[in-house]
Amino acid sequence: MKILQETIREKGKAIGKEILKVDNFLNHQIDVKLLNEIGKEFKRRFGSKEITKILTIEASGIAIACLTAQYFDNVPVVFAKKLEASNLDQDVYESEVHSFTKNKTYKIRVSKNYINKDDKVLIIDDFLAHGKAASGLIEIVEQAGAKAVGVGIVIEKYFQNGRKFILDKNVQLESLAIIESLDNGKVNFK
Amino acid sequence: MKILQETIREKGKAIGKEILKVDNFLNHQIDVKLLNEIGKEFKRRFGSKEITKILTIEASGIAIACLTAQYFDNVPVVFAKKLEASNLDQDVYESEVHSFTKNKTYKIRVSKNYINKDDKVLIIDDFLAHGKAASGLIEIVEQAGAKAVGVGIVIEKYFQNGRKFILDKNVQLESLAIIESLDNGKVNFK
Repeated sequence: MKILQETIREKGKAIGKEILKVDNFLNHQIDVKLLNEIGKEFKRRFGSKEITKILTIEASGIAIACLTAQYFDNVPVVFAKKLEASNLDQDVYESEVHSFTKNKTYKIRVSKNYINKDDKVLIIDDFLAHGKAASGLIEIVEQAGAKAVGVGIVIEKYFQNGRKFILDKNVQLESLAIIESLDNGKVNFK
Repeated sequence: MKILQETIREKGKAIGKEILKVDNFLNHQIDVKLLNEIGKEFKRRFGSKEITKILTIEASGIAIACLTAQYFDNVPVVFAKKLEASNLDQDVYESEVHSFTKNKTYKIRVSKNYINKDDKVLIIDDFLAHGKAASGLIEIVEQAGAKAVGVGIVIEKYFQNGRKFILDKNVQLESLAIIESLDNGKVNFK
């Protein structure tokens, strides 16, 4: 997706060979207009899937998921919670996710009220790195007996091999920008 | 706001006299269509303020802020982060917030890159309870030398007196649903 690649080149910051900072437009300050374009692109790629729900994970996924949902007839968005929220239903689907960036493992939870077995779920997230968050979300969809019909990613760090875990589950993966490598402040797209 | 009151009556759950659960449509599952109406209403109430930025706090505020921003010529959204994120800039504005619901105090942070002294900032959040989150966000705006021109709240728990702290700072407060009391599962609007 051309405008996304241009924005990453212009406003992203590659730090070392592993980290791409995009808090200028994606996960601290949010460029709503760009996210609308991203939402339209997800619609183009997943529009035939009869999606009934969009599932994401707090916090950075929420903006992308909500703006995208507008192009899917306003299907509900559900976001998995990372911490034990005191007023979350006790009755939850749960999975574990390891974050390499933060070097810790945390639980993610979704109330059983908000995914049901008839749902066709599109999973949306900002990054695909080692694939742990997306895999955790797919597990939650499976626990609900629902179908994960797609994983839509804004930026894939191809060199961290997360795509393998998604494709192994036979879920369509669409990444709008795929990064082959990061090197000395330079971003190389695939 | 009538459609919001109706949704709260239909889908919210009052627990005791203090807690209103709205995770069906606002802070776990998100009703994107309703949030678009909320965004339009905020535009109606703050449209004359020449807003240059919308500031909110993770996680529940993000959806509301982003969908609202669309009605303000797609001004950027910035969300304050609650935890020490490893790849957040070191150079941040910071404030402390006490959550009565979770009975803990946490820090909120915004990178200095994303609010500047010329900004006219609209603060958006899901709830106004004791006013701690909104006050913390106003403090961050003040630290930046910018101007908080409004606080837009989806649901105000009037009986918890948060509005006092906002009005003491001379900031326009607009709450789209104002709850006088919660009692035995019943929601009484003001």
